[in-house]
Amino acid sequence: MKILVTGGTGYIGSHTVLSLQEAGHEVVVLDNLVNSSEESMRRVAELSGTTPEFHNVDLVNEAAVERVFAAGGIDAVIHFAGLKAVGESVREPLSYYYNNLVGTLNLIRAMERHDVHSIVFSSSATVYGEHNPVPYVEKMEIGASNPYGRTKEQIEDILSDIGAADDRWHIALLRYFNPVGAHPSGRIGEDPQGIPNNLVPFIAQVAVGRREKLMVFGGDYDTPDGTCLRDYIHVVDLAEGHVAALNHVADRAGVFRWNLGSGKGSSVLEVLRSFEKAVGRPIPYEITGRRAGDLPAFWADATSALADLSWSTTKTVDQMCEDHWRWQENNPNGYAG
Amino acid sequence: MKILVTGGTGYIGSHTVLSLQEAGHEVVVLDNLVNSSEESMRRVAELSGTTPEFHNVDLVNEAAVERVFAAGGIDAVIHFAGLKAVGESVREPLSYYYNNLVGTLNLIRAMERHDVHSIVFSSSATVYGEHNPVPYVEKMEIGASNPYGRTKEQIEDILSDIGAADDRWHIALLRYFNPVGAHPSGRIGEDPQGIPNNLVPFIAQVAVGRREKLMVFGGDYDTPDGTCLRDYIHVVDLAEGHVAALNHVADRAGVFRWNLGSGKGSSVLEVLRSFEKAVGRPIPYEITGRRAGDLPAFWADATSALADLSWSTTKTVDQMCEDHWRWQENNPNGYAG
Repeated sequence: MKILVTGGTGYIGSHTVLSLQEAGHEVVVLDNLVNSSEESMRRVAELSGTTPEFHNVDLVNEAAVERVFAAGGIDAVIHFAGLKAVGESVREPLSYYYNNLVGTLNLIRAMERHDVHSIVFSSSATVYGEHNPVPYVEKMEIGASNPYGRTKEQIEDILSDIGAADDRWHIALLRYFNPVGAHPSGRIGEDPQGIPNNLVPFIAQVAVGRREKLMVFGGDYDTPDGTCLRDYIHVVDLAEGHVAALNHVADRAGVFRWNLGSGKGSSVLEVLRSFEKAVGRPIPYEITGRRAGDLPAFWADATSALADLSWSTTKTVDQMCEDHWRWQENNPNGYAG
Repeated sequence: MKILVTGGTGYIGSHTVLSLQEAGHEVVVLDNLVNSSEESMRRVAELSGTTPEFHNVDLVNEAAVERVFAAGGIDAVIHFAGLKAVGESVREPLSYYYNNLVGTLNLIRAMERHDVHSIVFSSSATVYGEHNPVPYVEKMEIGASNPYGRTKEQIEDILSDIGAADDRWHIALLRYFNPVGAHPSGRIGEDPQGIPNNLVPFIAQVAVGRREKLMVFGGDYDTPDGTCLRDYIHVVDLAEGHVAALNHVADRAGVFRWNLGSGKGSSVLEVLRSFEKAVGRPIPYEITGRRAGDLPAFWADATSALADLSWSTTKTVDQMCEDHWRWQENNPNGYAG
């Protein structure tokens, strides 16, 4: 199949482009390069032997999106593009709603016009919000608690209503847990702009000397070691999950929701210890106050994806840290270096 | 103040334009005329003595919206424009999400660019969804159950997040119950395209001979007479509620939510009897099966609007029916006649 990947130059996008190529698909990448670099596509080409077709397009530009579809041949879409930082979304909600909603609506309308009705959407465990008990199960009522999460929830609602109204649509809503790691080659990986929002990229930048120490937000939670528990998933497992979801919906109309997670929680200190093992030396850290909005613990019920897609995570937290470190050590300044 | 009214040629919009003019405001109307007629503006001018400035603009056209703001002088916005039929929204969700969300986001962005930060938004009691007990209170957790209602809920969320992020914003979210009636002059009123979705316009078209009989959906609900209870509000009361909300938020930053309803429920058969009294003869009707998605009963807790705005409804169901009938009798085919 010929797959359009929006946001394909980003962290999860670039790994998924590679997995799609390895599975024999042709890939067209669309990205506005606001939070990513086209260098990731050159690295993917080096790994796969095939250069993905790339278009520097912002989804809010309806005419530019139309041109990509008019060129023809697209069978399905994997939609990653969107702004993604929770804290920034609280400060700049209009920018988040505008980019994520208008971009997605332009994309769906172009799909309609060109009779493309298969889409895999990059949602998030954030949609489960603050009120659901762990582990999170797909059938729970969702309700995000910040603007970023609300854009994901709203797009899930939009796609769900479209799928309910018109049985030509094949829709997969993938709720990611905490993606970390990098391709084992060390050639592609996460390249956050500015101060990393997530744990492992922050640890990696401390390890490589770009930051002084890790701040651990809260050591007094009701968890085994007092730090927050999250469900970490290796980005290559996550990329394979997209290929599995795409294959599943290709043959089946409807709206499907799957958690993509490992099904278990790991604490901040456990991840830190794994990363120290990978690096071979201690990483400086300090336990400080809790951060507003952080939940003590959440992880996926991962049984639906296993049952429906025969997919589950294969890589351990140790492997995530080893691969993340290989990428960071070889590319201390990300793609810019 | 100079007030931009989006959707100002429609049913509630046109009555609000008149109330704004009567309160001494200058009005600029923007409408795409998809579900309405510019004739309503000529009638408003005839009643008030002042022709509102009118622009035939679709909010999804960002450049056209920009031109209206660039002309300058707008102090505040009342935002009615949007698609509004529940059943149609279930069949054509993409059209609802595209028009209502993209239109609103373009409007808010234009307001930002031109330093206009006061908005009164036309929300709906629909946002209370199916799970809340009656009467509905503003502090309840919202959750709409159809695409139309979800666009209202999403826009409430967007505006709430914007208000929380930036204290320059003055935002009123008005949750309407069931608007009926018409201006007592009989010159402006509701002019639905196609088969009316709401009770009173349907009864009125039966009374005027455009339809054979009223179908009453369900006579076996657990209500006093077995038919559904709704909170009907005279459109002139509703229009005055907008002026009151605008005056309130003009002086106060923040996000405010008010029900605009009477605070009590009337049954389908009670409204029918009132309308028969206004017309002076029986209206043919038939009680048939329940309609999917209809709630047995809901009405507003109307105490917040009274406390904050010193506003409450003043007109009875009998007056709503008399005024609605005067409009319908004088304009059997609406503005087209």
